[in-house]
Amino acid sequence: MKTNPGRFFEDYRIGEVIHHAVPRTVSGGERALYHALYPARGALYSSDEFARASGLPAAPIDDLAAFHVVFGKTVPDISLNAVANLGYAEGRWLDPVYPGDTLRSQSTVIGLKENSNGASGNVYVRTQGLNQHGHVVLDYVRWVMVRKNRLDAPTPDPVVPDLQKVVPAADLVIPKGLTFSNYDFTLAGEPHRWGDYAIGEKIDHVDGVTVEEAEHMLATRLWQNTAKVHFDATFREDGRRLIYGGHVISMARALSFNGLANAQMIVALNAGAHANPCFSGTTIKAWSEVLDKAETSAPGVGAIRLRLVAVKAGAAPFALKGADGKYLPEVLLDLDYWALMPI
Amino acid sequence: MKTNPGRFFEDYRIGEVIHHAVPRTVSGGERALYHALYPARGALYSSDEFARASGLPAAPIDDLAAFHVVFGKTVPDISLNAVANLGYAEGRWLDPVYPGDTLRSQSTVIGLKENSNGASGNVYVRTQGLNQHGHVVLDYVRWVMVRKNRLDAPTPDPVVPDLQKVVPAADLVIPKGLTFSNYDFTLAGEPHRWGDYAIGEKIDHVDGVTVEEAEHMLATRLWQNTAKVHFDATFREDGRRLIYGGHVISMARALSFNGLANAQMIVALNAGAHANPCFSGTTIKAWSEVLDKAETSAPGVGAIRLRLVAVKAGAAPFALKGADGKYLPEVLLDLDYWALMPI
Amino acid sequence: MKTNPGRFFEDYRIGEVIHHAVPRTVSGGERALYHALYPARGALYSSDEFARASGLPAAPIDDLAAFHVVFGKTVPDISLNAVANLGYAEGRWLDPVYPGDTLRSQSTVIGLKENSNGASGNVYVRTQGLNQHGHVVLDYVRWVMVRKNRLDAPTPDPVVPDLQKVVPAADLVIPKGLTFSNYDFTLAGEPHRWGDYAIGEKIDHVDGVTVEEAEHMLATRLWQNTAKVHFDATFREDGRRLIYGGHVISMARALSFNGLANAQMIVALNAGAHANPCFSGTTIKAWSEVLDKAETSAPGVGAIRLRLVAVKAGAAPFALKGADGKYLPEVLLDLDYWALMPI
Repeated sequence: MKTNPGRFFEDYRIGEVIHHAVPRTVSGGERALYHALYPARGALYSSDEFARASGLPAAPIDDLAAFHVVFGKTVPDISLNAVANLGYAEGRWLDPVYPGDTLRSQSTVIGLKENSNGASGNVYVRTQGLNQHGHVVLDYVRWVMVRKNRLDAPTPDPVVPDLQKVVPAADLVIPKGLTFSNYDFTLAGEPHRWGDYAIGEKIDHVDGVTVEEAEHMLATRLWQNTAKVHFDATFREDGRRLIYGGHVISMARALSFNGLANAQMIVALNAGAHANPCFSGTTIKAWSEVLDKAETSAPGVGAIRLRLVAVKAGAAPFALKGADGKYLPEVLLDLDYWALMPI
Repeated sequence: MKTNPGRFFEDYRIGEVIHHAVPRTVSGGERALYHALYPARGALYSSDEFARASGLPAAPIDDLAAFHVVFGKTVPDISLNAVANLGYAEGRWLDPVYPGDTLRSQSTVIGLKENSNGASGNVYVRTQGLNQHGHVVLDYVRWVMVRKNRLDAPTPDPVVPDLQKVVPAADLVIPKGLTFSNYDFTLAGEPHRWGDYAIGEKIDHVDGVTVEEAEHMLATRLWQNTAKVHFDATFREDGRRLIYGGHVISMARALSFNGLANAQMIVALNAGAHANPCFSGTTIKAWSEVLDKAETSAPGVGAIRLRLVAVKAGAAPFALKGADGKYLPEVLLDLDYWALMPI
Repeated sequence: MKTNPGRFFEDYRIGEVIHHAVPRTVSGGERALYHALYPARGALYSSDEFARASGLPAAPIDDLAAFHVVFGKTVPDISLNAVANLGYAEGRWLDPVYPGDTLRSQSTVIGLKENSNGASGNVYVRTQGLNQHGHVVLDYVRWVMVRKNRLDAPTPDPVVPDLQKVVPAADLVIPKGLTFSNYDFTLAGEPHRWGDYAIGEKIDHVDGVTVEEAEHMLATRLWQNTAKVHFDATFREDGRRLIYGGHVISMARALSFNGLANAQMIVALNAGAHANPCFSGTTIKAWSEVLDKAETSAPGVGAIRLRLVAVKAGAAPFALKGADGKYLPEVLLDLDYWALMPI
């Protein structure tokens, strides 16, 4: 058989390094498409001039676009037979990605734990995105539940990696040369600086977008993500196409511009949960909570740790979890990340 | 509150200059997307070679794409609380926009007139789009009806600017170096030159496009236009998303290629009315009327003043207004502009 | 009348050369859009680095994107009044197309045969796509059935060109410098090389995509294809928009990555039939059959002749024709092409 059946739980070995296929050169086309697909307005990613005033050579590709390109390559090897995408940890953006850069991905298996039912198990991988110079531009841990193909395959010794709950502020990597000393708040779109945000503060981002089949498929294909469930309406019994969780992440992040216009660069992904599936026709809204703040060594640059929550329109203000500690059904995403903001 | 509530009528002052946020670097990505979103076929905007033969350094971004980029930036400051987009005047394109250029926008408040009901008023702004060299590439007046937030806010002295009904032909700015002396009518797509069009002539552009939700949202986001009503199906009581008027403008202009393939560059916007709202599922058709003609100083270049009318499929031929002088319900757009055409 | 009514059968003359309008400069924008519209993952077209390792200066635009650009230009002159798109033959890609290249098209009428009903006839054209250097990058024959406008127009002497059933392997043009000697099968996505494929082998490509109105219209506009039936829901009596056959070709080709990831470059189109019309909502799947194999003079490069069949989801495995020799109703496309593959 020449087609890719995907890997099953018993096909992974601790320490194994998987080199993912189909490297990708990004261009202004990816940038334009990202801005057509999401209401992204971060000035640093929209304007070469603004980026240069911030010490970068040009406007990078949006951080989440770089994430999606790196992530998409892992799907055929990691999550084609996944039952669930369970979590993210220790994500760090190490270098901005510019038009003309070529990205590839590789993953190391760092954890394996079979479920008690013997039919599936959790696979933990550390994925790295590398550019054409061999520099790692993105590094993150993801774990997924993967089906077993042969139920009688031997159960591996369980290995569950010890993952940081949060990337420590001291480990955040600030792009070389970045400065917010000359930051133009008017061009950026909001006057609120790092000092204006208080830990515990919550922001309702107000705006909403009703998502369409054509849009999430355009996005998901652009990232060369091959999971059948996003594209093939005959795949699920209910005839619905599941929207790639990354589409919801990018939509919510873009919506968060309204209130967080100056949370410019994402530098770390601490944790993330796709709380409920999202389908075409859903109107996505978002809210954020300031979880932490830290100083950095770069001129004028502070770090802010944010919870970004995507919800369906109509959800109660700042809806998250019920009394049982479980996500409410109207919650789509709960993401925990660090961003850089002018002090 | 950190999110942008938009400005209300009482927040504007005559003479105030508003610097709009989020500058934008355009690339071949914007060009490709423009041609995917609209059936645009103007040779000067499609081919670097054709543009060079016309004396330009490369194919510019479509004039209306430049307009949308400049316009989109004004929305958060000018029309977030607008009840209606009332009109355009004195629009002039002063310099073509090329891939690699970075655009920003600024508006000066030139008129204010409260409505007799005391609940809203008209705001007139002159908006300028500037490139990275600080050159004004586009200049136009727009007026909108904006709600008051505090009904007891004082009524400003009414100022209604004295606007030209039509940009005089002598004020049209021809891009430096432009020549149609070596114009290739075969490559351009039609043999009809400036001399072949008669004032009063009407042209039915025949073709139609049925618009989809995904398309108008992709377009409107690409221009970083943030008006909620275009994206959020829960915003209006009827659950419909209003299509950005600029989407209809670009669609009608692109359709007008069939009969006006040589009306290459738009150099002035004399007036414009969004006669009726447009929603997904509408099939847009277009017709034009030659309103005036003028010579220019550039070699082989004539100017033609056109009325461009977008209608719903099924409208009577050249439908415009009823006996009562009001736009017919099947009319979507009535636009008055100057274009450049080979003599 | 200034609009283009299209040509009718009686308007063509044997030997006539038609220079098609609207040249097109392609950029990274076209590449990004192609990858957003189709699940295309060929490494040579996705990565500048992979292309350079294969001896090319950069990643070309996908071969079928180049085909669509060239084809789209012919529509206003060849198929605006076509009743049916009957076939392709003798198609050869002669030079890769890179971002920055400008394409134009020209067609020579090489065959005319009126139908016995006197109301229509078949028009055969040889179309060439040329770049800005005047090099022919693509050359193919297409024939269409075109309506007569004046039923009393004289019947031309029938000329039916003698077309090759298959482009001989010796006539395939290998891009200058191409080498697969250092081919990285891991980055390409599959281990199967030319030697692993047997003539007669059939491959079910497994994946499927459910197509949307917005997507096929974006694609078809991007290629500046003006056929009304793709865009205007009021054009057909049943209110449906017919999907451009080329959209199905690109979708099927992209789906064939799963099993044919190393069939990198398309170098010849031997034959093609749009077996049944495709409409929005259809889930497209694909299968291939190895028809032939040949060696080439380029290092490490073999040629493989493939039948690519697009079917609707739910079709029987390898469905093609019924006992009556006619295509089954669930078959959309039957394409015969040569591709280059590492030996």
